[in-house]
Amino acid sequence: MPAIREAVARAVAEDIGALGDVSAALLAVDSHVVASFVPRADGVIAGCLAATETFAQIDPAVRVDWSVDDGVEIVTGQVIGRVEGSLPSILTGERTALNFLCHLSGIASLTRRYVRATHGKARVRDTRKTTPGLRALEKAAVRAGGGVNHRGSLSDSVLIKDNHLAGLSIPQAVARARLRWPGLSVQVECDQRDQVNTAIEAGADLVLLDNMTPEQVAECVKIVDGRFPVEVSGNVSVETLGAYVDAGANLISVGALTHSAPVLDIGLDLDLNN
Amino acid sequence: MPAIREAVARAVAEDIGALGDVSAALLAVDSHVVASFVPRADGVIAGCLAATETFAQIDPAVRVDWSVDDGVEIVTGQVIGRVEGSLPSILTGERTALNFLCHLSGIASLTRRYVRATHGKARVRDTRKTTPGLRALEKAAVRAGGGVNHRGSLSDSVLIKDNHLAGLSIPQAVARARLRWPGLSVQVECDQRDQVNTAIEAGADLVLLDNMTPEQVAECVKIVDGRFPVEVSGNVSVETLGAYVDAGANLISVGALTHSAPVLDIGLDLDLNN
Amino acid sequence: MPAIREAVARAVAEDIGALGDVSAALLAVDSHVVASFVPRADGVIAGCLAATETFAQIDPAVRVDWSVDDGVEIVTGQVIGRVEGSLPSILTGERTALNFLCHLSGIASLTRRYVRATHGKARVRDTRKTTPGLRALEKAAVRAGGGVNHRGSLSDSVLIKDNHLAGLSIPQAVARARLRWPGLSVQVECDQRDQVNTAIEAGADLVLLDNMTPEQVAECVKIVDGRFPVEVSGNVSVETLGAYVDAGANLISVGALTHSAPVLDIGLDLDLNN
Amino acid sequence: MPAIREAVARAVAEDIGALGDVSAALLAVDSHVVASFVPRADGVIAGCLAATETFAQIDPAVRVDWSVDDGVEIVTGQVIGRVEGSLPSILTGERTALNFLCHLSGIASLTRRYVRATHGKARVRDTRKTTPGLRALEKAAVRAGGGVNHRGSLSDSVLIKDNHLAGLSIPQAVARARLRWPGLSVQVECDQRDQVNTAIEAGADLVLLDNMTPEQVAECVKIVDGRFPVEVSGNVSVETLGAYVDAGANLISVGALTHSAPVLDIGLDLDLNN
Amino acid sequence: MPAIREAVARAVAEDIGALGDVSAALLAVDSHVVASFVPRADGVIAGCLAATETFAQIDPAVRVDWSVDDGVEIVTGQVIGRVEGSLPSILTGERTALNFLCHLSGIASLTRRYVRATHGKARVRDTRKTTPGLRALEKAAVRAGGGVNHRGSLSDSVLIKDNHLAGLSIPQAVARARLRWPGLSVQVECDQRDQVNTAIEAGADLVLLDNMTPEQVAECVKIVDGRFPVEVSGNVSVETLGAYVDAGANLISVGALTHSAPVLDIGLDLDLNN
Amino acid sequence: MPAIREAVARAVAEDIGALGDVSAALLAVDSHVVASFVPRADGVIAGCLAATETFAQIDPAVRVDWSVDDGVEIVTGQVIGRVEGSLPSILTGERTALNFLCHLSGIASLTRRYVRATHGKARVRDTRKTTPGLRALEKAAVRAGGGVNHRGSLSDSVLIKDNHLAGLSIPQAVARARLRWPGLSVQVECDQRDQVNTAIEAGADLVLLDNMTPEQVAECVKIVDGRFPVEVSGNVSVETLGAYVDAGANLISVGALTHSAPVLDIGLDLDLNN
Repeated sequence: MPAIREAVARAVAEDIGALGDVSAALLAVDSHVVASFVPRADGVIAGCLAATETFAQIDPAVRVDWSVDDGVEIVTGQVIGRVEGSLPSILTGERTALNFLCHLSGIASLTRRYVRATHGKARVRDTRKTTPGLRALEKAAVRAGGGVNHRGSLSDSVLIKDNHLAGLSIPQAVARARLRWPGLSVQVECDQRDQVNTAIEAGADLVLLDNMTPEQVAECVKIVDGRFPVEVSGNVSVETLGAYVDAGANLISVGALTHSAPVLDIGLDLDLNN
Repeated sequence: MPAIREAVARAVAEDIGALGDVSAALLAVDSHVVASFVPRADGVIAGCLAATETFAQIDPAVRVDWSVDDGVEIVTGQVIGRVEGSLPSILTGERTALNFLCHLSGIASLTRRYVRATHGKARVRDTRKTTPGLRALEKAAVRAGGGVNHRGSLSDSVLIKDNHLAGLSIPQAVARARLRWPGLSVQVECDQRDQVNTAIEAGADLVLLDNMTPEQVAECVKIVDGRFPVEVSGNVSVETLGAYVDAGANLISVGALTHSAPVLDIGLDLDLNN
Repeated sequence: MPAIREAVARAVAEDIGALGDVSAALLAVDSHVVASFVPRADGVIAGCLAATETFAQIDPAVRVDWSVDDGVEIVTGQVIGRVEGSLPSILTGERTALNFLCHLSGIASLTRRYVRATHGKARVRDTRKTTPGLRALEKAAVRAGGGVNHRGSLSDSVLIKDNHLAGLSIPQAVARARLRWPGLSVQVECDQRDQVNTAIEAGADLVLLDNMTPEQVAECVKIVDGRFPVEVSGNVSVETLGAYVDAGANLISVGALTHSAPVLDIGLDLDLNN
Repeated sequence: MPAIREAVARAVAEDIGALGDVSAALLAVDSHVVASFVPRADGVIAGCLAATETFAQIDPAVRVDWSVDDGVEIVTGQVIGRVEGSLPSILTGERTALNFLCHLSGIASLTRRYVRATHGKARVRDTRKTTPGLRALEKAAVRAGGGVNHRGSLSDSVLIKDNHLAGLSIPQAVARARLRWPGLSVQVECDQRDQVNTAIEAGADLVLLDNMTPEQVAECVKIVDGRFPVEVSGNVSVETLGAYVDAGANLISVGALTHSAPVLDIGLDLDLNN
Repeated sequence: MPAIREAVARAVAEDIGALGDVSAALLAVDSHVVASFVPRADGVIAGCLAATETFAQIDPAVRVDWSVDDGVEIVTGQVIGRVEGSLPSILTGERTALNFLCHLSGIASLTRRYVRATHGKARVRDTRKTTPGLRALEKAAVRAGGGVNHRGSLSDSVLIKDNHLAGLSIPQAVARARLRWPGLSVQVECDQRDQVNTAIEAGADLVLLDNMTPEQVAECVKIVDGRFPVEVSGNVSVETLGAYVDAGANLISVGALTHSAPVLDIGLDLDLNN
Repeated sequence: MPAIREAVARAVAEDIGALGDVSAALLAVDSHVVASFVPRADGVIAGCLAATETFAQIDPAVRVDWSVDDGVEIVTGQVIGRVEGSLPSILTGERTALNFLCHLSGIASLTRRYVRATHGKARVRDTRKTTPGLRALEKAAVRAGGGVNHRGSLSDSVLIKDNHLAGLSIPQAVARARLRWPGLSVQVECDQRDQVNTAIEAGADLVLLDNMTPEQVAECVKIVDGRFPVEVSGNVSVETLGAYVDAGANLISVGALTHSAPVLDIGLDLDLNN
C-alpha cells in the first residue's frame, strides 16, 4: 500500500538523521537476535503492516512475523509478533515501528471501548479530525477497532455544516448538491430541531445532530422516523454514549478516536535465550 | 520552514481528494467573510505557523492574523486569531488548519501541565515517541509548552538502552562512543543502581533512570552527586512527578507529551456581523 | 491548489531537462514581449490556472492575464489571455502551458458536446478512466464543460461491478456496504434487467445500466420508477446519446470524456507590435 | 525504471483515496482468482510494465504474466496477459492498470496507423505535445508503435521556431547555437521556402517544414537536395500524410500521436472456470 | 527554476534536523543585521540563485542582493553580495547558502582556468561525471565559467563508447542510431586512429578522441580534415591542455570540472557597524 | 537505507532523461555480460551500497558483488567488484554508479591521507561543508576513511561561532544552551586565547580553535589542561597538520574532506572473455 510505504519512509528519515543511529553503530553488525512485540496493557492491535514496513526499509534482511492480525484483542504480556535479524538494524527500527504500532493500536483500542459501550445498538464513527499526514492509516485503525469511517476526504460526500449556512440555506444546499454531485450522499449537520425538518423536506440523505442533549436527539429521532440512520456528534464520551444510544441514535461520531487516543503501550523485548 | 510546508502540503492533499471540497463548491466564490479562532478550553497555543500555511496553500488571498504567539496561555472564548477571505476557501482549509492547531496545542498544553507540576525545580523533556511524520512540529510544540527536547533523531546523541546491552557492556559502549563520536554526549539508561555506578565510572555524560521508584531515584541522585543532571523516565504522570522532583531528579522525560496528549479544542467561528 | 502545483512542477521538470531550454538560451534575457493565447478551433476553455502556474514556476516575473474563465466557450482567433515578460522565459514555458491548456480544454469541449446533445434532459458524467496522474485536473475540466463527476476515487462511493459479483451477490454486497460504510451511496452496475430488480430490492441508492440498448434502458427506467436517477454507461457516443435520453436515462457516463478527448488546439502568438 | 514507478505510485495514490477501495473491501480477502487482459479492438499493445507495476505496488502477491511484448499487434478477444491473485487486490488495481494500458496502447496503435500510411517511405515522429507528467511513458509508446522520437526535452537539441525569430535571425541563431552547444543538432522550423535557403546557408542540421502544402514541401525537398532528412509538421493526418511522403518528406511529425490518441479499449475478464 | 528549488529544499532539510538550529535558537529573534558575502580567494562566482533561494526558504523576510552575476570574476575581499534580516535566520541559512555558492563557484573557477589555458583556440567542455543530484546546477556553473556543456542526460545525444562496442560495431551503431534517433547527433569515442576512419565512413557527426597523446590527436585531426570539431578527453590537465590545443583539438572534455573542483572559499561577514 | 535510495533515485532520474539511454537502446537487450570495477589509482573505497542500488533501480536482474567493503584500501588494477547482467542495463547504470563510487571514495581516500598524517596522535573530523543533498552519504564516506563526524545537522549539538557573538556573549550562550538544550554538548569556536578561558569558565564542553597558529594552539592546550579534547580548524592541510598535532590538538576538523576531495578514479571494465 503506497500510503503505508510513504508514511514509513518519512518516519524513518526523520528519526535516522544525517549520521544514522550513532548508538547502534557501536554494536557488531553480525550480532543476530530475536525480539518479541509484547503489549504492556490490554487493547486492540493495529498497524502491523506499518511496523513490518519499517524494518523492511531499514534492513530487508530483518524478518517480522505476527501472531495476530489488526483488530485482534491482545493482553498484557502476550507475545504478539517476532522480529529476527541483526541487532543494530532492529534497534534502529524499534522506535519508529513502535511509534506506528502504539499510536494506531491506541486508536483501535479506544474505538473498541466506544463500540463496546453501544452494546451493539449503534455504530461508532470517526471524523476528519485525524493527525495530519496519517489519515489513511488512522481510518484503517478505526476499522480495526470495530468502528466505521466517516468521510475520507472533502471529496467523499456533501456535508453541510453551520459555517456553510452563512452562504446558503439548507434547501439551497441540498438542491445544488443534487445538481452538481449526483450520486454523492448529502448530509446536513443540525444543531436545532427545526433544521432536521428542513433537511428532511429538502431531501437530505442523512442528518448529523451536533451538540444536542439526549432528549433533543430523541425528539429528532421521532422526526426522522426511520427514513435514514440518525447520527450524533459533539463531544460524546464513553460515559455519555449510552444515553444517546438509548435516545435512538444509530451512528455516533467521535473525534477523539483519532485526535485524542492515548497510545497502547507495546514494547519490543529481546529474547535473550535465543 | 520546509518541515511545516511539507507537513501542510501532505495534510491538505489527503483532505482535499480528487474532486476538491464538494460542499464548499456549492457556495458563491465571491462571498467574503471574517472568522475567528476561538479556544473551547484553556491551554497553551502552538502551531500558528502551520495553520497559516494551510490557508496559504489553499488560497493565497486568504489572510491570517494572530493575536498570540506559540507558547502563550489562552482561555476559553478568547479570540486568538482571525482569518479573512473567500468563504469556500476558508471552509476548505478549516479542518486541516484546526487539526494542526488542536493537535500541537494539545501537546503544548499537556507539557505546560507537567512543567507547572515541577514548581520550577526540574525540567520536563519529551522523547522520540512522536507521531510519525510530525517530529519537528511536535518537538517545537513541546518547547512552546515550556519543555525541553530530548534527541531530535538517532544522530543527535548516544543513548545506550537495555537492548543495546545485549551486544556490549556499559564501559565498552562509552569507550566506543568516545572514540567514534567525539563531541556527542553519551547517555546511559539505567534501571538498576549498580548501572549508575558503572556508567559514572565509564565516564558517561548523563544517566537516564528508567522505571525506578522515587526512593531508588533518591539513591542514584546521591551516587551522581551533582556530576551532571539526573534524568528520570518511565510512565511518570502529573500526579507522580512531584515525588521524583523531590527525590532530586533534574529532568523528567515524558513520552505522553507527544504520544498521548489529547487535543486542545479550538474552533473557527464565522463573524456574522462582518 | 496543491494538485495543480504538483502536476505543473512535474511537467516543467520533465520538459526542461538537465541543460535547460537550449534554444531559448540563445536569446537576450532582457527582451520583453507580450503574447496572446489564441484558439485555432472553437471549444470550451479549461486549465487556465495550470497554464498560469507553469509560467509562475519558470519565472515569477512573467505575468499572465485571462479574458475568460474555465468553462467559457471560445472561438477561433479570439484572444483569450495574454502573457507578458521576458521572451526566453515565455518560450520555455509555452509548450508546457499549452499542453495543459489544450488537453484540459479538449476534455471540457468534448464534455460540452455531450451536454448539448442531451438538450438539457439528462446530465453527462465522467468515469475513473482518467489519464494517470491528472485525475483532479481532468475532473475539474469535465465540470468546466458542464458535466458532473462520478467517483473521484475508490473511497468515494461503493460501486458494485460485474467482477465483484464473482465474490458476492448483489444483496450481500448492498447489505455489507450499509454495515461497513454507512453514509456512502451504494451503486450497482447492472447489465441485465433482473439485476435492476435485485438491486432495488436490496436497497441500492443508484443503478448503473451498462452496455444496454435504449430499449433495455427504457424497460429498466420503468422498473426504477423514479426512485432514483438512472445512469447509463457503455460506449455511448454523441450520436447514440439521444436514444438513451429519450429512453429516460438521467445520467450518461462517458469514459471518452477523459480517456479519448482530442486536444482543443490553442496557440500562443507573439504580439509583434508590442 | 524510476519513471514508471513514480507514475504508477501517483496514479495508485490518486485512485485509492483515504479509505481505500470501499467496494473491494466487501469481498473476502482470500478469494483467489485468475483474470485475463483482453482487447475489445485491434491495435498495438504498450504499457505492459506500467500495468505490472500497478499490481506490484498494490499487492506484491499478485502475479502478472504477459503473452505479448510492447509493440506487438493484438486483436479483439485475444488473451494478451493474465493476472492471478486475491480478488480484492485485483479489483483495486484493475482500473489504474487499464488506464495505463489503454492510454499507452492507444498511442502505440495510432502511431502504427501513421507508420503504415507511409508505406515505409518515411518515418513518423512524435512531438513535445505530450500529456503532462507522462512524457517518458508516452515517448516509449510511440516507439512501440513504430515511430521515432523527437526531442525528449528542451535540453535535447536546438530547435528554432517562429517565436524565437522575434529575438534573433536564423543565421544568428545557428551561429550562437554552434558556439554554445557544440555537438547538439540545430534544427530550424520554416514556414516559408526562403527560410529553408537561409537555414541551409546558416548551416542548420535539419529543417522542419511547418504548415506547408505538399507542393511547397516538394520545392523545399529540392532545395535541401539530400543534405539531410526533411521533416514535415502541422496537422498532418493519416489521410493527408501520403501526399507529403510523395513530396519527398523523410520525417513526419504528428502531435496527435500523444495529444489526441483515443484509448485502445482493453478489458480485464475474470476467468470464472478457474 | 524547479531544479534550484528542489536542490535547496533538500539541502535545507538535511541541515536543519528535527530540532532546528539549536545554536541560533539562543539568539533574540528580533536582532536585525546586515552581512556581506566576501570571497577569501580570487575566482568566478556561480550559484547566486541557489544562495538566494536558501534564505527565501528559511525566512522570506531575509533579503539578498548581489553586486555581481554568475560568471563574473571576483577577488579576495570584495563585497559581492549582501544579506539583510534577522540574525538567527541568517545564521541558520549561512552554511547551506555557502555550500552551494562555494561548490558551484569552485566549478566555475576551475572551468575558467581551463578556458584561459586554451587562449581562445578551443572550447572546454564538461562531462556526465557530475555530483549525483546536482547535474543541472553544475552544468550551469560550467557555463558560468565559460565552458560549454556535453550531454545533459543519456537522452541528449548518441555517444558510442568502448563498452558499447562489445555489443555492436561502429558502423552498426551509427546506422541504427540514424534509424532510431533521427535528429540526434551521433558521436563515437575513439581510442585508436583506425576507429576515427571507421567513424567518419560510418557517418558519425563527431568523434571524441579518448586517452590519446597530442601526437595521435594531431594525426586524427588530419583525418577529420575539418569535417566537424574534434573533441579530446582523458585526464587532460591545465598543464597538458596546451599541447592538445596545438595539436588541433577544438573541444576539450574535462571530467574534473565537475567531479574534482575544489571549492572557491567564500565567507559571510557580519557588518558590525550596521 | 532511505538516504541512499533517494539519492540514487534522483541521480538515475537526472541522468536518464525523457527518452532513456538512447545509446544503450541500440544494443540487443539479451546480450549478457560481466564487468569489473577496477580502480585507476590507489585509495580507499566507499559508496558500494549506492553503486549497488543504482543498478537495482535500473534493472533488478543485474547482480552486483563486491570483493571489498567500504573503508578498505584498494590498489590500481585490483578487481574490487563485479556486475553481471544485460549489457544495455549495465551501460545505462555505469556512469551514475561510478559517480557515486568515485566521489565517495575520493572523500574516503582524502580522509585516510589526513588520518595517516596524524600518526595516530589525533583524530580527523569533517564539517557541515558537505555537497548539498549528499550529507549522509558523505559523512559515511568520512567514517569509511577513518575519520570521525562533526555535527550531522544544526540539531545535533550547540556550536557558538563568531557570528553568534554579535547577538550574545560566550557565558550567555553557554548558560542559555544548558537551559534550553540539556544533554546536548555545547561547543565554542574561539579565535583568540582569551575566549578559551571564557569558554572554560562558562562551562563549555569543547572548544574549537579556529584559524590559530600551532603556537597559539599549544598555549590553548595548556589552558584546557586535559579537561576535554581540543579541536583545531581552519584550512589545515596534510602538510600543516603535523604541527597542530604536535601542539597537542586532539581533533582536527577539515572542511576539504567533503568540499574539495578530488574523485578516486574507478572504472568499469567489461570482461570480454566471459
